[in-house]
Amino acid sequence: MITVLFAALPDRWAEYEEPLRRALDDTGLAYDLVTEAAPETVDYIVYAPNSKVQDFRPYTKAKAVLNLWAGVENVVKNDTLTVPLARMVDEEGLTQGMVEWVTGHVLRHHLGMDAHIVNPDHDWVPKAAPLAFDRPVTILGLGVLGAACGQMLARLGFPVTGWSRSEKRIDGIRCLHGDDGLAEALTGAQILVLLLPNTPATESVVNADRLALLAPGAAIINPGRGPLIDDDALLAALDSGQIGHATLDVFRVEPLPQDHPFWAHPNVTVTPHIASETRPDSASRVVAENIRRGEANEPFVHLVDRAAGY
Amino acid sequence: MITVLFAALPDRWAEYEEPLRRALDDTGLAYDLVTEAAPETVDYIVYAPNSKVQDFRPYTKAKAVLNLWAGVENVVKNDTLTVPLARMVDEEGLTQGMVEWVTGHVLRHHLGMDAHIVNPDHDWVPKAAPLAFDRPVTILGLGVLGAACGQMLARLGFPVTGWSRSEKRIDGIRCLHGDDGLAEALTGAQILVLLLPNTPATESVVNADRLALLAPGAAIINPGRGPLIDDDALLAALDSGQIGHATLDVFRVEPLPQDHPFWAHPNVTVTPHIASETRPDSASRVVAENIRRGEANEPFVHLVDRAAGY
Repeated sequence: MITVLFAALPDRWAEYEEPLRRALDDTGLAYDLVTEAAPETVDYIVYAPNSKVQDFRPYTKAKAVLNLWAGVENVVKNDTLTVPLARMVDEEGLTQGMVEWVTGHVLRHHLGMDAHIVNPDHDWVPKAAPLAFDRPVTILGLGVLGAACGQMLARLGFPVTGWSRSEKRIDGIRCLHGDDGLAEALTGAQILVLLLPNTPATESVVNADRLALLAPGAAIINPGRGPLIDDDALLAALDSGQIGHATLDVFRVEPLPQDHPFWAHPNVTVTPHIASETRPDSASRVVAENIRRGEANEPFVHLVDRAAGY
Repeated sequence: MITVLFAALPDRWAEYEEPLRRALDDTGLAYDLVTEAAPETVDYIVYAPNSKVQDFRPYTKAKAVLNLWAGVENVVKNDTLTVPLARMVDEEGLTQGMVEWVTGHVLRHHLGMDAHIVNPDHDWVPKAAPLAFDRPVTILGLGVLGAACGQMLARLGFPVTGWSRSEKRIDGIRCLHGDDGLAEALTGAQILVLLLPNTPATESVVNADRLALLAPGAAIINPGRGPLIDDDALLAALDSGQIGHATLDVFRVEPLPQDHPFWAHPNVTVTPHIASETRPDSASRVVAENIRRGEANEPFVHLVDRAAGY
């Protein structure tokens, strides 16, 4: 009998209890799924970083912490956590949701939809957008999410350039890497999508110098992490017209404070961190698979590299 | 030496002369491309239905009329036209543009983007859309455009049902046909895309009875033809809430008259017939290919079935 502690806020328990039991049942393991347990009895911790569990030292028997969130920046800094930490890579839920959100917002900017959605003067100006072939899109970050979004955009016809810290090869995407590759990836891009992890190296990666490399009037879409962007530099570039529009789903502080200039800026769209959500059904299967692996002495999947921070 | 008459408005000539010469040069044929010619000397007519050429009887030697538009409803009624008539099927331009526009507007409704694009109270309500898997989309019309749009939406994860008058089989799309199939295709659809041709049989195909079959609050997207919709029935369904939103690119009268209630309705988006445009480069290659076929005694492609009207 293994003990699985569900350490997340109560509203998550309401969503997850049933799908998690279904997924654990499917593993064939004997388990006890609980929201409270004596720490030294716990084998696995299903975890949300905003849970009340912040000191992992009493969990002396724990084999792994299985994060329900894709982002682990708040967990990796926790020195009390020494056992393997897996992030949520929920192909079905997170990735699918992100592909839909990114594809939709790229097409929104590409097609110039806003001019028709808000058209109080009833202007009839029949000017079609260029075809996707003529709209270069760059994605920073080629993890599971960036690669999936890039491949869908390429399938739609966009010339897609992707950038990652280390070298990657992905069908349909022009892959660049390293510092020189970053400047090349940004130069002339008309739509920029940010899907980098949040690490010290990616903090404010989108700064004034890099914004200046994009095509004049470019759109920025950030469903990645708030700190990727230097907010003041983005606001200055929006005011100068170098950036035509920013659609932002993530922020340094969430919910975005009411007095933040992003709310009032006419060329900023704020979405409330909805681009990608962990979906209970598919996420539960991912968690259960790692517990099955742990019990079968197989390597865990989606482990976080503590040194890299993601 | 063949004579090719370009019969369209002068602004088209400015766009088309160069790409058309390039495409004709590539055929290797000796040709004379002109905007004026003695009718009895003309071998091929590159045609826009709003051209001044409306009486085809003097063009006694013409081998084909090659339409620059996808829609031929104004041409098929012309009794003076007895030679083969080809419609524009510009895979690269028309189809690509339509796939981009339809995919973008389906995703806009699916993701509920409008609530974020126009959000004067700065509401932060983190509620993600369901995944595409749970959003049934139905496409009426499974010609080249409908099939291409349906396949792209299926690739994004939407369960796509397509309907056509005659039976079709298309990978990734649940294909229905005939009168019974139409009711089945509409029942429960959350997003309805109209890509039927404009024929007597499709006039007002979207009427009050059929609107009532859709899921409550469904979105309607019409990049097909204006007369497919019974405007009054749609307005009533919008007012009752049975239809949540209509995004309309085509109308019975274009430009849409300023006093038409569609302009003022809060749940209607009007786009100015831009979903799909013939693009000079790719359309010129299609025209040149049919001329090459005519000279090589090969069958023309994209011929209009005069009896069916498309």
